Amino acid sequence: MTKIEGIFTPTVVPLDERGEINEGELRRYIDWLIADGIYGLYPNGSSGEFTRFTPEERRRIAKITIEQAAGRVPVLAGAAEANVRETIAACETYHEYGARAVAIVSPFYYSLGPESVYEFFREIAVNSPIDVTLYNIPMFASPIDVPTIQRLSELERVVGIKDSSGDITSMMNMIRAVRPNRPDFVFLNGWEAALVPMLLMGCNGGTNALSGVVPAFFRRLFETTRAGDVATAQQMQFQLLGLFEAIINPFEFPLGVRAAVAQRGFQIGDSRQPIGNQQRQALAKILESMAPNLAAMGYDDLEKFRCN
Amino acid sequence: MTKIEGIFTPTVVPLDERGEINEGELRRYIDWLIADGIYGLYPNGSSGEFTRFTPEERRRIAKITIEQAAGRVPVLAGAAEANVRETIAACETYHEYGARAVAIVSPFYYSLGPESVYEFFREIAVNSPIDVTLYNIPMFASPIDVPTIQRLSELERVVGIKDSSGDITSMMNMIRAVRPNRPDFVFLNGWEAALVPMLLMGCNGGTNALSGVVPAFFRRLFETTRAGDVATAQQMQFQLLGLFEAIINPFEFPLGVRAAVAQRGFQIGDSRQPIGNQQRQALAKILESMAPNLAAMGYDDLEKFRCN
Amino acid sequence: MTKIEGIFTPTVVPLDERGEINEGELRRYIDWLIADGIYGLYPNGSSGEFTRFTPEERRRIAKITIEQAAGRVPVLAGAAEANVRETIAACETYHEYGARAVAIVSPFYYSLGPESVYEFFREIAVNSPIDVTLYNIPMFASPIDVPTIQRLSELERVVGIKDSSGDITSMMNMIRAVRPNRPDFVFLNGWEAALVPMLLMGCNGGTNALSGVVPAFFRRLFETTRAGDVATAQQMQFQLLGLFEAIINPFEFPLGVRAAVAQRGFQIGDSRQPIGNQQRQALAKILESMAPNLAAMGYDDLEKFRCN
Amino acid sequence: MTKIEGIFTPTVVPLDERGEINEGELRRYIDWLIADGIYGLYPNGSSGEFTRFTPEERRRIAKITIEQAAGRVPVLAGAAEANVRETIAACETYHEYGARAVAIVSPFYYSLGPESVYEFFREIAVNSPIDVTLYNIPMFASPIDVPTIQRLSELERVVGIKDSSGDITSMMNMIRAVRPNRPDFVFLNGWEAALVPMLLMGCNGGTNALSGVVPAFFRRLFETTRAGDVATAQQMQFQLLGLFEAIINPFEFPLGVRAAVAQRGFQIGDSRQPIGNQQRQALAKILESMAPNLAAMGYDDLEKFRCN
Repeated sequence: MTKIEGIFTPTVVPLDERGEINEGELRRYIDWLIADGIYGLYPNGSSGEFTRFTPEERRRIAKITIEQAAGRVPVLAGAAEANVRETIAACETYHEYGARAVAIVSPFYYSLGPESVYEFFREIAVNSPIDVTLYNIPMFASPIDVPTIQRLSELERVVGIKDSSGDITSMMNMIRAVRPNRPDFVFLNGWEAALVPMLLMGCNGGTNALSGVVPAFFRRLFETTRAGDVATAQQMQFQLLGLFEAIINPFEFPLGVRAAVAQRGFQIGDSRQPIGNQQRQALAKILESMAPNLAAMGYDDLEKFRCN
Repeated sequence: MTKIEGIFTPTVVPLDERGEINEGELRRYIDWLIADGIYGLYPNGSSGEFTRFTPEERRRIAKITIEQAAGRVPVLAGAAEANVRETIAACETYHEYGARAVAIVSPFYYSLGPESVYEFFREIAVNSPIDVTLYNIPMFASPIDVPTIQRLSELERVVGIKDSSGDITSMMNMIRAVRPNRPDFVFLNGWEAALVPMLLMGCNGGTNALSGVVPAFFRRLFETTRAGDVATAQQMQFQLLGLFEAIINPFEFPLGVRAAVAQRGFQIGDSRQPIGNQQRQALAKILESMAPNLAAMGYDDLEKFRCN
Repeated sequence: MTKIEGIFTPTVVPLDERGEINEGELRRYIDWLIADGIYGLYPNGSSGEFTRFTPEERRRIAKITIEQAAGRVPVLAGAAEANVRETIAACETYHEYGARAVAIVSPFYYSLGPESVYEFFREIAVNSPIDVTLYNIPMFASPIDVPTIQRLSELERVVGIKDSSGDITSMMNMIRAVRPNRPDFVFLNGWEAALVPMLLMGCNGGTNALSGVVPAFFRRLFETTRAGDVATAQQMQFQLLGLFEAIINPFEFPLGVRAAVAQRGFQIGDSRQPIGNQQRQALAKILESMAPNLAAMGYDDLEKFRCN
Repeated sequence: MTKIEGIFTPTVVPLDERGEINEGELRRYIDWLIADGIYGLYPNGSSGEFTRFTPEERRRIAKITIEQAAGRVPVLAGAAEANVRETIAACETYHEYGARAVAIVSPFYYSLGPESVYEFFREIAVNSPIDVTLYNIPMFASPIDVPTIQRLSELERVVGIKDSSGDITSMMNMIRAVRPNRPDFVFLNGWEAALVPMLLMGCNGGTNALSGVVPAFFRRLFETTRAGDVATAQQMQFQLLGLFEAIINPFEFPLGVRAAVAQRGFQIGDSRQPIGNQQRQALAKILESMAPNLAAMGYDDLEKFRCN
């Protein structure tokens, strides 16, 4: 089994003018991500706006992604559905498709406590034919606290966690709690604004939306950090923060990411969530906002930034 | 057109042992609610755990409810789906089924700002063949702020708002902002812990989960308040608070409501969200917790509380 | 003993050009408040910026207020000091000055839990020679939760609570918990944006900053509400909300109140907290912002609004 | 001028049985901290419960500390008083006493916005005869946001910031914003649960309450991190987290720190804030809670832990 480590791109979904999945462009985008150096793919995550698609569409997105990756990189497929039974069915399907593992977000809309979060994941884990990674994103979904992660790590099928809280103390507490008994358990950081420190403190990698914009930079950042070159890694983190402030912070997620990927030459199209003029106008200037940060990262020739 | 006013019950969904919709029991429950005096029905709300059903199941729940109500009381059907297009399709379907109006929750999971919330509802409202009520529940979904409500109230199809924030200042600000230009706009309170004061300050009614447990009490409360008997209404609100502390507060919503409705003699079954022992044990004692509050409300004969 | 009820004004402190207490103007302001109909005075509250004065200055402010009131209206003196011992000393002093009671804010800066909040107030209450009212303002200080209020209400010296949370459910829960055993316990609302509903649900009065701007309006509102004229009271609450949006919401508290009182013709001077141009400019236009709301309240002749 | 760097201990204040400052013990404690390797002292911080002392007592605490340090280590004296004028007076006094710099917490109780926070610090900075460090602790006081820090860093007297937010992204954004124009500006971390990653990302040191319990460990941690030994530093951070969970998290701050320092053999006495039995009982067992974490840190001989 491929070990889950390095940077995974939570992919955005190209849409055509009618709002339908643009399959050709999605395949082309996946090829480019792999060519540019990404370690793995993560469809149906928050960047992939999984809640805005139907169950059938989510399956199609996962299928296209896995097919197109064709074993070149592992795929971590977001499998959250309306309830436990539907989620287990998606796990089975993605297993058949050939995903490396699934990622399942904690229950959302309702805010659940630790006991229910545990029961939810436990029931999925004991029924899933494929490895499960937990997805903790407390700003959008019920938090998965440290004792719950520890309990869930006792289940063989639960192989890791993606944490998008941005809270480095909480992440270190997870590692402290789990690693002694499960040294293979994988910790992925999902908040690029704290990526380097989290890697230095023990994360195995990240699932970072901005890696869908500058995959090569993320590969370099990961290798630099792993090599223990703290000074360079710090500098790269500061560059990444600049890009974060240009692409993530000013917009409702993941609009800025969609717009930034479009700047690399992909037909991403409009999100299914309609937006107002204010945000539309700001998005139209995103290349301008990104430019100084891209230059710091070595993408100083914007001609080459649009890669096709 | 029936005016939307009074107390609507956001119905829970009876499930059988396999977790499937128990249609017969749902129909029987609806008949009882109407017989006990409720003013209207609201399927596919938060009490109805709409997020835990598939799109097909949500349609079936609405269909059963509207059929069974058979025009005796109006039905406000929750129509939130994955995106604007799917939601409009649900509006069309529920219109055909004969719903009085739909209720649409503000976008959730992602936290959207006022501009996007406006665009979301605007696009639905201008395409819906049926009246639309907004559903503001800031603890679970993107907040609909007062200026946004005011702008949306300029659209003819938007006929009201259900507010579950529990914030009486915010509710009065909504009324202040909207009523001068749209005197017919309907304000429904969705937080029973503040129901009487909200009615006294101008709400037209409520959509209250506990009305699914004690419909007759809610009818009396509504009539008493409307008649201007502040002293009795205050007393009834305090009794309602007692019930709220027994049924709503101690449990993850809507587990307590499901358990309390079961105590009236309906086969509600387990929620689709698995729960732990701690909550399960507390739920098993809910009749005991409710008893003193029920007695204060006049339900002192628990034999008669289980109505069949 | 005078019963504590009706509307108390939490007074602002007039300062001269050097930032010193303007005693003459404070005395003149107190006379006017009483003449305009206020029920009581509350120096050293949040409106009085008690944290920005030295212990000696707080004593002087209380002394001036009590002297000038001269028994015409009761004085509720804010007595919070650095610790329990200093606070008890202030209670003794204000008792000698002739205050009706003291008001003590829950510990702030550090965020304390219920047990410590209880111990803090208990130790003060059993040592104070003067009646104590609790002051709950969770946005600034450690919250005093309902079980803690209930426990504290068992102490004879604790005679009431001022609640500035704006949370009507919480307020009703306090009344439910305390009144059966302590029917004399006083509940004062400190959030004018919810004043009328809180009075209708059982509060005995309020301590409302805006009553320092329009005392006569507050007297009418209180009498109207008490008389059970819900329709008029509702209308007055909506007018009050308009004033709230003009004076309280746009500014760092209590800057708008200071500016509004100045518009009535008092030399209030600058707060000791320096402010920036943006806020200064907005404050300069406060009369303009207030005008439509004042007109709705019957203060349509702005010439007469400046009363001297 | 001594450069401000390394770990500063925010000292707790030993109190005798009457709650008075225990001067002898404070002096003895300071000597021990210096002997055990701490880099500097920070009286009148949150650990020092500055809000629970009178202005005269705060001066006395600073005086004793500076006198006793006697130039062996620099002293950063907390100088926050009731208002700008009183704070400037404290700056003057502490300058005379021989403090290296003052630390001033952002305004608290009232929650101020960036403009007012700026004006507050600006007025102090232009009038202070001594270097000023800003103290950002958003859980207790008005936040100092990144643009405000940047503006304040343009004032010569403002030489650094102590940040206790625990938010590593925010801290890196501060450094990114300030360091290019003020390479000498000092960043101190005040949240030990994230100390090592913050040092790795560019902090110059920390002001950490737990350094008052295990000063030698903190010196080793700082030197190890600075030397670039990431693996050992990570391990030490995890050990520190264990201690944090034993001493800081379970108690109202700074009760656990006071109890832990007492375990080293100092007569710390009770805090001035009275506490309940629950917390008192837990505090009585703090040595037991700390023991495994201390062992991991190398303090396995608890006999020697009590150093006198």
